Amino acid sequence: MGKNRLETFSDGVLAIIITIMVLELKVPHGDSLTALSPLIPVFFGYLLSFIYIAIYWNNHHHLMHTVGHVSASILWANMHLLFWLSLIPFATAWMGENHFSATPTALYGFILLMAGFAYWLLGQAIIRSHGPDALLAKAVGNDLKGKGSLALYLLAIPLAFYQELLADAIYVLVAIWWLLPDRRIERMLQNQHQP
Amino acid sequence: MGKNRLETFSDGVLAIIITIMVLELKVPHGDSLTALSPLIPVFFGYLLSFIYIAIYWNNHHHLMHTVGHVSASILWANMHLLFWLSLIPFATAWMGENHFSATPTALYGFILLMAGFAYWLLGQAIIRSHGPDALLAKAVGNDLKGKGSLALYLLAIPLAFYQELLADAIYVLVAIWWLLPDRRIERMLQNQHQP
Amino acid sequence: MGKNRLETFSDGVLAIIITIMVLELKVPHGDSLTALSPLIPVFFGYLLSFIYIAIYWNNHHHLMHTVGHVSASILWANMHLLFWLSLIPFATAWMGENHFSATPTALYGFILLMAGFAYWLLGQAIIRSHGPDALLAKAVGNDLKGKGSLALYLLAIPLAFYQELLADAIYVLVAIWWLLPDRRIERMLQNQHQP
Amino acid sequence: MGKNRLETFSDGVLAIIITIMVLELKVPHGDSLTALSPLIPVFFGYLLSFIYIAIYWNNHHHLMHTVGHVSASILWANMHLLFWLSLIPFATAWMGENHFSATPTALYGFILLMAGFAYWLLGQAIIRSHGPDALLAKAVGNDLKGKGSLALYLLAIPLAFYQELLADAIYVLVAIWWLLPDRRIERMLQNQHQP
Repeated sequence: MGKNRLETFSDGVLAIIITIMVLELKVPHGDSLTALSPLIPVFFGYLLSFIYIAIYWNNHHHLMHTVGHVSASILWANMHLLFWLSLIPFATAWMGENHFSATPTALYGFILLMAGFAYWLLGQAIIRSHGPDALLAKAVGNDLKGKGSLALYLLAIPLAFYQELLADAIYVLVAIWWLLPDRRIERMLQNQHQP
Repeated sequence: MGKNRLETFSDGVLAIIITIMVLELKVPHGDSLTALSPLIPVFFGYLLSFIYIAIYWNNHHHLMHTVGHVSASILWANMHLLFWLSLIPFATAWMGENHFSATPTALYGFILLMAGFAYWLLGQAIIRSHGPDALLAKAVGNDLKGKGSLALYLLAIPLAFYQELLADAIYVLVAIWWLLPDRRIERMLQNQHQP
Repeated sequence: MGKNRLETFSDGVLAIIITIMVLELKVPHGDSLTALSPLIPVFFGYLLSFIYIAIYWNNHHHLMHTVGHVSASILWANMHLLFWLSLIPFATAWMGENHFSATPTALYGFILLMAGFAYWLLGQAIIRSHGPDALLAKAVGNDLKGKGSLALYLLAIPLAFYQELLADAIYVLVAIWWLLPDRRIERMLQNQHQP
Repeated sequence: MGKNRLETFSDGVLAIIITIMVLELKVPHGDSLTALSPLIPVFFGYLLSFIYIAIYWNNHHHLMHTVGHVSASILWANMHLLFWLSLIPFATAWMGENHFSATPTALYGFILLMAGFAYWLLGQAIIRSHGPDALLAKAVGNDLKGKGSLALYLLAIPLAFYQELLADAIYVLVAIWWLLPDRRIERMLQNQHQP
């Protein structure tokens, strides 16, 4: 199987996920600015999840760039990733409508954790079927970020029940980490690990 | 007509079907784990249907691989398949919200049966317009699975009115059958048939 | 501008239109077959509109096949067509929920009329920018069907206020006319016109 | 990164935005023309936003035509544009349901302003990474329209609180400005500036 159709399908699903999230911004009944105010947390949830899906789309593109042929395990690892990403609109809406309270914040972190784990599994499936060659070095280069994100989600989930805003702050920080250009950050972090 | 645009259109429809199903996971009002519990059957219905659509996407891709040119009968057989698949979100939501009770479970099986039948018709339309050549041997190789699934759906529909969980178990087993790698299973089953 | 991106965009819009229509099949609260019965007219409306969108997708594909370059007038004629087609889910749901009563049936016919007219305009825009050459003969060959459909919609709209089921029957017949293989029908009709 | 996948993803998002807007045309309960009348402002809002998204799709296509390779800043400038465009369905529905009253009209203008600003940023990101060469001259040629639109939105937002219909008229005029063929208008306006 060529990878084109897998990319097209994944792009379609990601485009739909990123767009239907906005349907959770329910149109308020009044026409004043006050009528909009209950939507403010929902809006920030939407913004955060929009950025996460955009990051996944970007990373997915880079990962698929290293793929030659699509094996069954790559195909199903990709579907597994799309499954968890498809739950982000639900978790976002639940979190936003409840003003980032404890349990929804923890669930949001759990979905991010499972999506991050599914992304790692996809990377592993690609490495297994292509061998550890030069092209995959790039994907492996993101490993620190990938594993660091998983660790931060794991930290945020229990934290949500004590200090929900700290957990939310962790989600924001992970997103910023991925948005920042790679080199500077990774070099800095690798220097700390190789003194 | 080239097959590219037919594939793209089908991929688009399948990507939308798989994603809008998640809209049936209605955001609950409370913010506790208890508020989520009524969603558990809806979630499992979503998971099952997600896997079915993913299987159809995968099989559709392999089937289309054997197609050279798209005749009118292939085009309409494909639309017929998309029609039944487009009803899966409805059947899934009805089944999930009613905790897999008898009639919704039977309807779900009926939609799966019609989709499976439409897939078989699509295969027949391809064979009619291309002749029984080498490439199509692959599609025919899946025949046992295809016809076996139809038989199992036919069994599950009346069963739903006596033992709904048995019918649901059949849907899960059929999905697992398709998910497992082809060779081992088919060889095993063919050995039973050719003693 | 190449025509690829215009085709891709149109396919995306048509795939979404054909799929979101199913969201109007609202999941009923009960779990019995009786609970499904109010959905029967909505289901038939969905089926009819699914077929219409599928026919438009098919015809659009053939029409675009004759296009070399996309002028501004082709682009906007295409958008105009998509606009009217995007209203089909609304008209379908209104007609289905009101059991094909007079005004919704007339509105449905009006949307079909405008979509058919927009399709004709698109054909004209293509002829204007490409000249009346060989490739376009195909599109012109469909002219009888195109103009006949417009005439039938024009007949059905006022008829809906006297005999709504006759108007609905006209929509069904037009769809069947398009579904039937071209040659036999057109030859038959042309023979009637050239005695 | 090649630009194909970025275009495909953007097309997908724009196709979904333009189509889900129609879901805000909620099916009325009655079946008379009177039952449709509250939808008239929602319909005109839909029409206006449909045209705006179509214009963005068209301009985006021309802008991307000048792009050779996609840098990280182009990718994120594009996502930023899609984010603001994804809010148009919400702003449209709020404006339409409140009969183009003051605050919703101002919010609609604000979203258009941010989308226009994001489009300008995307142009800047392309110029920075490709240099001010011949192909980009086209994009720069649209500058007057782009900056003029931003100025008109900035004017419309405060105006909405005094004369909401004037603000709405400005949105309509900007859309018409973009719909009209480029040359005549721009030559006319440039002549006024170079006496």
